[in-house]
Amino acid sequence: MSQSPLQLGSITGVRVGCAAGGFAAAGRDDFAMFAFANPTASAAVFTTNQFCAAPVIVAKEHLHKSAGLSRAWIINSGKANCGTGAAGEATARASCAAAAAALGCKPEQVLPFSTGVVMETIDSAKLCRATKQAAAAAQPEGWPDAAAAIMTTDTRPKGACATSPCGRFKINGIAKGAGMIHPRMATMLAFIATDAPASPGQLAEMLQPAVATTFNQISVDGDTSTNDAVMLGATGAGSLTDADAGSLADAVHGVCAALAGAILADGEGCTRTAAVSVAGFGSDDNCRLIAEAVACSPLVKTMLNAGDPNLGRLLMAIGKAGVTLQQEAVTISIGGQLAFANGQRVADFSEQQARELFAVENVAIDITGGGDEGNYCCRFTDLSAEYVRINGQYRS
Amino acid sequence: MSQSPLQLGSITGVRVGCAAGGFAAAGRDDFAMFAFANPTASAAVFTTNQFCAAPVIVAKEHLHKSAGLSRAWIINSGKANCGTGAAGEATARASCAAAAAALGCKPEQVLPFSTGVVMETIDSAKLCRATKQAAAAAQPEGWPDAAAAIMTTDTRPKGACATSPCGRFKINGIAKGAGMIHPRMATMLAFIATDAPASPGQLAEMLQPAVATTFNQISVDGDTSTNDAVMLGATGAGSLTDADAGSLADAVHGVCAALAGAILADGEGCTRTAAVSVAGFGSDDNCRLIAEAVACSPLVKTMLNAGDPNLGRLLMAIGKAGVTLQQEAVTISIGGQLAFANGQRVADFSEQQARELFAVENVAIDITGGGDEGNYCCRFTDLSAEYVRINGQYRS
Repeated sequence: MSQSPLQLGSITGVRVGCAAGGFAAAGRDDFAMFAFANPTASAAVFTTNQFCAAPVIVAKEHLHKSAGLSRAWIINSGKANCGTGAAGEATARASCAAAAAALGCKPEQVLPFSTGVVMETIDSAKLCRATKQAAAAAQPEGWPDAAAAIMTTDTRPKGACATSPCGRFKINGIAKGAGMIHPRMATMLAFIATDAPASPGQLAEMLQPAVATTFNQISVDGDTSTNDAVMLGATGAGSLTDADAGSLADAVHGVCAALAGAILADGEGCTRTAAVSVAGFGSDDNCRLIAEAVACSPLVKTMLNAGDPNLGRLLMAIGKAGVTLQQEAVTISIGGQLAFANGQRVADFSEQQARELFAVENVAIDITGGGDEGNYCCRFTDLSAEYVRINGQYRS
Repeated sequence: MSQSPLQLGSITGVRVGCAAGGFAAAGRDDFAMFAFANPTASAAVFTTNQFCAAPVIVAKEHLHKSAGLSRAWIINSGKANCGTGAAGEATARASCAAAAAALGCKPEQVLPFSTGVVMETIDSAKLCRATKQAAAAAQPEGWPDAAAAIMTTDTRPKGACATSPCGRFKINGIAKGAGMIHPRMATMLAFIATDAPASPGQLAEMLQPAVATTFNQISVDGDTSTNDAVMLGATGAGSLTDADAGSLADAVHGVCAALAGAILADGEGCTRTAAVSVAGFGSDDNCRLIAEAVACSPLVKTMLNAGDPNLGRLLMAIGKAGVTLQQEAVTISIGGQLAFANGQRVADFSEQQARELFAVENVAIDITGGGDEGNYCCRFTDLSAEYVRINGQYRS
């Protein structure tokens, strides 16, 4: 992952502004606004966590009330505004009203987002002040600053962009996220916008499968945020012919994949990643259960951290997933080399070979169950002492 | 947990012997045998892991074939004999035959157990030699040596004993286990024997509920071993009147509880434990899902490690369990002090108070959902940098 500044350029119809509101560390930008010149078609995927935050509740309501046509998305980092009761919801609504006043639109055309420490209240006056400042500062080239403003434990800003093959539209995306990431749920925060024309319904049809195979197939720690959201907007300033209708969906998927990869690579304390691909356990769902058991197992993740090919831990994780299997039918390959088959370690798969296959940045683990049906893959980080340190000291 | 040598005494009808077989570190005892003077009523709870080890397969078969009447239980540490194919199963069977020859019984009256590194083969000749040596060394007072011989990453041997109130029977138990422990499954290895009279069926009826509320309600890392087993035997050398029939079940539960507590306290890298009690989410099963989401969350466990009362992580874990809830109806108490209610932090629950309630060896976390139905509790360890170190270097 390059550490160089993000090069994102602009999307016609979108201005981006930041402000230092005092929610995260003093002095740094911790607030961002996406301001749309016109009501802009929007689609969203939100967290499935039952303790969803106040801004998630308000964003869902506003997306519905505005018929998927947004004038602004506003985001603060530092505090999640979750577990903050009626006061927290009032704060989220007040910030939408402040944005609406600044932009000359209705409050329900503004969608709020927060990320940071859960169960701490946000000062409503501060949030409204930051909203006004960000609106005043908004400009077309503001994407990289916003990518930095929404960071929490991220060590670097994350962005991706693409231009359609025909040059008719552009697409930009930024994301934050480094921990509390699990394949079964949405993701951390991501904001994507294109100048292509599309309806809210068309965007939703593109976004859901793109999220399913990108943000939903990465795991850092198996935990799921209370504040996750992925937003996709289309200003319609560019054009899209019938001939390249599919290319917008491809571009959305490509940007989601790049952002998901950046989140994984910046996983808290991450020193090594793995991609686990599971097939032939009777159904996609069975394969998913096994892939997630592997991806979330602390013993597999510490093995990955140490670069120690203690392959029996993969058997343990496969076996604990609750999927009925025939031990003799299961195969495990590491880096494309068959390591386990016929119920036992492959005789010519040496310890030395195993160590070499683990001494890479991204370890490929392929697991088959002997059946014809079912496929699932996901990517995950190792578990390091640094992860423990980061999360023990998160608030200090 | 006391570091003093275990004081277990003897159980009439049981001899215990150890041997150094060269499966774990050179020179140390890594094999133990429980030899019963007569066919002894036995009951078992085994792992639910689909990749169960060869000895688990053989032990289940032998328990059935012998109608629950054992002459010996044999255990090696160092290697788990799991993922070892037909050769591994043959090795487990050969060790039973060796024990049967040494004790003058049938092979199906011998139950084998292994614990250690998965997917490494055990030398069958070495295992048979250790079996014979342990049979020759067996003596009534051998329980503490066996508790040491079955250890893997345990830092101390674990044992518990009890005498019935009336003095009519005794009960002894030993266990090993420090990681790969999860409430949804069996446990690590535990071997319990009493001189009370009981049938295999009566023992099974006592053992299952005892395991459910002890070994099955502790979690170190959410992983589940391929080799877990809890054994309970009754030699019948003592006596049991109708008046104290219930006291045997109580004693079994008490020994299981003491051993489960010892396993938790010796959890890999453990510096602090917590007990989470969940009630009022509509059903016991819903409460279990929430308790396990809390107990297995890396973010909750790192918070516990740091002694940092970042209580929002409890909301996150409660919300990700997949149980529908009303945020306003949920309460969280720490150390008996109400910390969260009505959808927000309780105003007079101060940060200082929270820090003090976390600065204890065992943190009590009580969660209620506002309903009348449902109860579940479990205990779990923190996640430390030391856990990562232990499990990265387990084989070296």
